Order: sequence, then C-alpha cells, then structure tokens
Amino acid sequence: MKQINVKPKANSYTIYIGSKINIVNIIQKINRELSLGNKAILITNFTLRHLHRDALNKLAVLRPEVIALPDSERIKSFRYCMKLIKVISKFDYKNKIFLIGWGGGVIGDLTGFTAAIYRRGISYIQVPTTLLAQVDASIGGKTAVDIEKGKNLVGTFWQPRSVIIDTTFLNTLPVHQIKEGLSEVLKYALISQKSLLRYLETNHAKVFAKSTKTMEKIVYECARIKAGIVTKDEKEDLGIRTILNFGHTFAHAIEAASSYKISHGKAVALGIIAALRLSELETGLNPEITKRIQALMEKLKLPLRLKRDRKFWKRVEKHMRFDKKFIHNTTRFVLLEALEKPVIKEKISISAIRRSLEFIKP
Amino acid sequence: MKQINVKPKANSYTIYIGSKINIVNIIQKINRELSLGNKAILITNFTLRHLHRDALNKLAVLRPEVIALPDSERIKSFRYCMKLIKVISKFDYKNKIFLIGWGGGVIGDLTGFTAAIYRRGISYIQVPTTLLAQVDASIGGKTAVDIEKGKNLVGTFWQPRSVIIDTTFLNTLPVHQIKEGLSEVLKYALISQKSLLRYLETNHAKVFAKSTKTMEKIVYECARIKAGIVTKDEKEDLGIRTILNFGHTFAHAIEAASSYKISHGKAVALGIIAALRLSELETGLNPEITKRIQALMEKLKLPLRLKRDRKFWKRVEKHMRFDKKFIHNTTRFVLLEALEKPVIKEKISISAIRRSLEFIKP
Repeated sequence: MKQINVKPKANSYTIYIGSKINIVNIIQKINRELSLGNKAILITNFTLRHLHRDALNKLAVLRPEVIALPDSERIKSFRYCMKLIKVISKFDYKNKIFLIGWGGGVIGDLTGFTAAIYRRGISYIQVPTTLLAQVDASIGGKTAVDIEKGKNLVGTFWQPRSVIIDTTFLNTLPVHQIKEGLSEVLKYALISQKSLLRYLETNHAKVFAKSTKTMEKIVYECARIKAGIVTKDEKEDLGIRTILNFGHTFAHAIEAASSYKISHGKAVALGIIAALRLSELETGLNPEITKRIQALMEKLKLPLRLKRDRKFWKRVEKHMRFDKKFIHNTTRFVLLEALEKPVIKEKISISAIRRSLEFIKP
Repeated sequence: MKQINVKPKANSYTIYIGSKINIVNIIQKINRELSLGNKAILITNFTLRHLHRDALNKLAVLRPEVIALPDSERIKSFRYCMKLIKVISKFDYKNKIFLIGWGGGVIGDLTGFTAAIYRRGISYIQVPTTLLAQVDASIGGKTAVDIEKGKNLVGTFWQPRSVIIDTTFLNTLPVHQIKEGLSEVLKYALISQKSLLRYLETNHAKVFAKSTKTMEKIVYECARIKAGIVTKDEKEDLGIRTILNFGHTFAHAIEAASSYKISHGKAVALGIIAALRLSELETGLNPEITKRIQALMEKLKLPLRLKRDRKFWKRVEKHMRFDKKFIHNTTRFVLLEALEKPVIKEKISISAIRRSLEFIKP
C-alpha cells in the first residue's frame, strides 16, 4: 500500500492506495488519530451495496449505518442532500457522527457536500470506487450538488479526512467507466508527467485487462499529481489548480450542449483534442504532440471526433462563452506550450475557438 | 464612523459602525477594493423594505436586485435557501453576483449560508438592522439554516466581505427587539469588559431612549469584542470562541423546551443568571456579582425568573444533556471565575445544573 499526503492550509490528510487493502484497519487508525466520531454513516448506492457486499461486510466491526441510494446522477442534488440530512440527523443523538462516501463521483460529491454543511462541517472519508473518482473527484475537497439551473452550482470546499483507494474495485467496473477515467489520466499526463504518457503508450492493453499493477501505478501517479496541485492551491484562487481544467472548458460546453447525453469522460477526451489544437494556434504547440495524443487516444478507445448538426455546435459555442470556469466575459483557457507546460491564456478569439472545434468534427 | 478590522485566517474584513452612514459609498469602496461583482442582490424582508425605503432607495445607484422575503423565522430554512438559490441563479448569467443581507439574524444567516454554498462561495455583505444582529449575529461568519430536526443544524463558516452597521436603524426597532440584543450585550460585558457593565449601569435609560451616542458606543464595544475573539478562533476549534457561549447552554435548552416560544434574548438573560449561579457553585464566583447583574437586568427589563411547570424543567434538563455545544456526553460549560475571567469547565454534575436552574424559578 502506498500513501500520499495532501496538505492544504486547512487540513492535511492521507490518501491510501493499494489493492485488497484493509479498509477497516485504515478507518480505525484514522479515527484513533483524528477522532472522527463514534458513529460511521456509510453512503453508497444499491448497485455497489450488492457488488461490494464482501468488502462492506468487513466493515461490520465499525457498526456503520449503511445508507444505499439509487444508482443515479439525480441523487447529486440539493433536494436529495436535504433528504439525506434528515436521515443522518436521526443517528446524531448522543453520537458524534462521521460519513464515509463509498462510490463514484456522484456519491463522493453528495457525501462531501453533506459533510460540509451538516453542523457547520463534520468529518468524512472518501472510498472512491470508479477510476474517475479514484484519480480525480475524490481528491481535493471540491464538493457540489446540482440544481435545476445547472450542474455543480451549489457546493463548498471541504476536505475529506482521508481518501482510501482500493484499485481492485476497478475489476467490476464496465469498460465504458474505465474510459471515463482515462480521459482524466491523459490530462494529468499532458499537464504534468510525460513519463505517464509513455507508460500509457506502452501499457494500454494492460489497462483494459485491468492488470492490478498497471491500475495501481496509474491511480498512484494521478493521485500524486492532483494532491500536489491541491496542496498548493486548495480553493482554486491562486491559479495553480486551474491547470486541472485543461480540456474542460470545451468539455463542459460539449456536455451542456448535449443536455448531458454525452458523458464527462467522452467530452473531456474531445475537449483535450480541441485544447491541443487551440494550443497549436495560440501558443505554437508542436502539432506532432496533438498527433501523438490522437494515436494514444485511439488505443485507449477514446473518441477523437463528434458527429453532430450545426445547431449543436452553435450551442457549444454559446456555452463556452458562459462557462462557470471563465464566466464574466473573459474567456480563460488552459493551454499547453509543450508537454508538462500548461499556461493560462485569456481573451481567446471566437474564431480560434471555432477552428479548434472544427478539429473534432468528422 | 468607526472601523473595526476582523482578521480570521481565511479573509480579513472591516466592520463599519456609525449613524446615518453612507452605505452606498462604503459598498462601492469595498467593491472597488475586493471586486465583489457587478450585480448586487439585496436580500431583505417585506417589513424592512417598507420601513427602510429611504435608505434602500439610496442604493439605486448600485442597481441591486431587491429580494424581499416574508418577515418570519421560517425563511431561515434549507428549503427556503433552495428557493432563494433558484432566484439568484437567474441573475447570474453574464454577471458576477454578490449578496447583501439587509436585516436581522434570520436574513443574515440565510444570506450568509446561501453565499457560502452558491458556486462554492460568493461574496456577501452584512447590513444588520437589529441590535442582536449588530452586536452578534452579523459578525464572525457563522451561517446556518434550520431543518425540521433542529435549529442551525445546517450551516458553514463563511466570512462576509464587510459588515456595515448603521445604528439609526435601531430607531424603528420595537422595545422587545432591543431587549433581544441587550442579553448579548450583557454577556460581552461579563466575559470581556467590566467598563461596559458600568456603562450599562449608568446609561440604561438612554438605551431605551435609543440615544444615538449610547447605541453607537454599545454596538461598537460589542462588535470590537466579538471581532477580537473571532480573529483568534475563526471556526470555534481552538476553544477561544467558545466563551461567546456564556449563558447559552442554559439558553438553548430553555428555548428548545419551550418549542421556541421563549425568545433567544429572554432565554439568554435567564441563561446568564443560571450560568452565574453555576459559576458560584463550580468556580467560587463571588455571589455579589450575580446580585449586581440581577439588579442591572431589572433596569434593562430583562427577565430574571421563569414560571413553568415541572415537565418544562425536565425538558430543559434533557435538552442540556444533548445540546449541540456540549454534545457527545461531555457537559461543557462556559463559567465565570470573576468579571472578565471566563473558564470552560467539563463534567458538571447534574445536581449542580439543577441547583442553578432552581435559581431562575420563581
């Protein structure tokens, strides 16, 4: 088992990464050290309660209350959070409660946000079970829920007391969910670690075979990159954390334009290609890098192009102008000057954005 | 106009205190310095929108959206916050919005909590209009809303970017609302400033005459005390901020036992007497101090005793065992050793608590 320390100003915590790790032991150890509470409330979904019943049974010694929610994106909502708080407040009599979010990004975000606002903040632990949550969502304390008006519009920064990652959970993950995470893995490689790019180029087959060693290596490297960035800029106000949005300005617009029919992972893959193309135009990035990434993305079974009508692309453009990340009339993009060299550029022209979008049309 | 700086770790800000102060000028100045946003959303209630129409009209230059809510405690709820967020998100297109909470504690708490969770935190300014909000609730960044299960169970720490206090707003405040604030004023005097106690003993008549000079002096001294404490212990995790709970453990139990029919201010007055009595028993506080405070409280028209049946007092006891402030089976009390000498005591016996409660029965 490997450990990574995340040290934001407010609270430092440890990420534990391994396969078939003893989760109970780790939680008990953390609880001894940090006095999280005497009553664990584990939040998961129906699918995972079934799939992970052996792992969950091992937690019996903690006597957790297990709350299983529908396996649906819609539980990541303000309304559902209110319901969840009603339930957890029942266990709060004579007890000090803490939460465990056992699941993917949806469960993690809902659990984190609930922990952030209940009694002005209680402790929570993340046990991410998808590749996307293991490499990205579970680390960094960004919590959020959706409202009708938009995604992630309600949230806080609230750090977990620990993130416990068992990569064997990925064994039951369907291929499309592995791919959801791979776009983010690719992003980390581009902004921060060339060697991870080479590793993916060599080991892509092992990824889909879910080789334990390969998955552990990939998750560890990504978690380490994210932890480093979050440590330097916990609340995204120093411009350092912003580089994690590489490819995401395009991605968010593509997701929104599709009314969220196109998944985040697919949108990020397309967004990365568009951002590489925009980098060629704006920073003079070597086009060979774009070609190299396109070749790797094919091997990783990620989409390079998107077939949609003219109206769709108009919507993408419109959303890009009002993305949460570059709201208020400055179009701020994370671009690459070279591998491992992200830069933030403002005032990108709409024509450059259009030329980049052309690049991901068939 | 006087200024007080609050300097918690996360964000420092200024409290402006005066009578007939130029609120627009101050907001514009803060906005220039801190870039709060280009769209102000002012949250108030129907009563204040009418009572303060002149002051509010002067804000026209800011082109704020004014949202007036019912003048009721029930708007301080998770449900209402959700509604409010729906409304404010409408103004968030192409704009950077910030909130102004114009009202008493209910408006201030709802505004602060909404600002805390919208887009992971936006700026807000407090314009407290009651004595209680001016001396206490508006300062310190404790935000909260109620859920069915209990008061203030959902909330965060989120500091305002400024607190603007115009003591002339107190002129339209009914006497019972002045008294609501006086209990807290008395608390500050006891835990931190003997001279304020003497000031109240000499000037109590001027308080009820709402003398501008007197109100400004009292609000300024209390705000200064609270600002000092909050600066040292923003999130109540260092035990310093805890002293602000003097009298409040009893008070919360009395409020809850009455199903919130007894107001916070009255409950705090009674709680202070009980806490002084408990201090006599536990720390050897000189009983002359209790007598002196009782005499002052009569002059301030605050209740010294409460007539209720046996069942009521049983409920008070029960609530005290599970108060949010001393949950998890340690009964933690703020007591006084002497004037200006608060101490935190744990493991107070139930018999001492009962003897203290006897003291506020007729």
